[in-house]
Amino acid sequence: MIKYCNSCGASVTHRIPEGDSLARAVCDACGTIQYQNPKIVVGCVPALGDRILICKRAIEPRYGLWTLPAGFMENGESASQGAVREALEEANARVEIEDLYTVYSIPHISQVYMMFRARLLDENVSPGTESLEVKLVTAGEIPWKELAFTMVRRTLEHYIEDRKTGVFVPRFGDIVPPQR
Amino acid sequence: MIKYCNSCGASVTHRIPEGDSLARAVCDACGTIQYQNPKIVVGCVPALGDRILICKRAIEPRYGLWTLPAGFMENGESASQGAVREALEEANARVEIEDLYTVYSIPHISQVYMMFRARLLDENVSPGTESLEVKLVTAGEIPWKELAFTMVRRTLEHYIEDRKTGVFVPRFGDIVPPQR
Repeated sequence: MIKYCNSCGASVTHRIPEGDSLARAVCDACGTIQYQNPKIVVGCVPALGDRILICKRAIEPRYGLWTLPAGFMENGESASQGAVREALEEANARVEIEDLYTVYSIPHISQVYMMFRARLLDENVSPGTESLEVKLVTAGEIPWKELAFTMVRRTLEHYIEDRKTGVFVPRFGDIVPPQR
Repeated sequence: MIKYCNSCGASVTHRIPEGDSLARAVCDACGTIQYQNPKIVVGCVPALGDRILICKRAIEPRYGLWTLPAGFMENGESASQGAVREALEEANARVEIEDLYTVYSIPHISQVYMMFRARLLDENVSPGTESLEVKLVTAGEIPWKELAFTMVRRTLEHYIEDRKTGVFVPRFGDIVPPQR
């Protein structure tokens, strides 16, 4: 929760600015408005032959579960550059991006995932600081019951399915929490 | 530039936090880190028969030039919901999203554009507060020299081209400033 103006340090009020339709953190002292917007997570499916690189998470959430290399996109980089960087950071993996593959909005946590298909350039991979373990798996070896996130499961399901025909169809969709 | 902690109001220092690799606005008083990440702009190509809805901008940047309805994605919504909302806000247009069509990263302004194909449900459109004028145009009527943004031109070029075959191919890419 934003309480102070990050430009002048005064207390903010939460109200709808003139001409806007949503409440924002507004500074009445200097006029700064602090907007909060969805964050982008970029990642890839690094493939080498019939195997895919996956990473066991060394951080929360979902510590100890398996994921595809992915992380928050940074200012000043493109989505594909971010996906390359994350593969390097999480698995010391050198990848070459092929195409955008899946895009999932997750409204309840205000995140959008953008996952690319990528060529893993060599087998020389090892865990980065955010991974306990990294490994190359065939379709039959994917630990479906130990995947960290719905977006990982869906992306891998589509990927394995599309690989049978050789036609990779980009997909977008929303991921919502299970109904209670 | 972030100068103060928006959680406790103390001055921040700009440094690389432990375990991170980029400088952030760090509060040494309460430990809050203010991250700044790319923003998502969501929009659509609203089509009705052989015509496309375009909007003349009533705001900077690119006041008076033509664009597709698009704007910043908000927390708590999906990308496609945001695209529907923007069409309503900018052109009082009711649209139904078909599929994700173009995704452009613009690293030098830290934005990612996500443009959808959409069905415009009826001709009953009118300018919202951010538009001077809205209109339905055929391919031959697109004001190519008065388009507001590169992403609009590219999206419309692909759209017009793909419409000839009826096969709409999603595209992603980066938009960089012209070399000086």
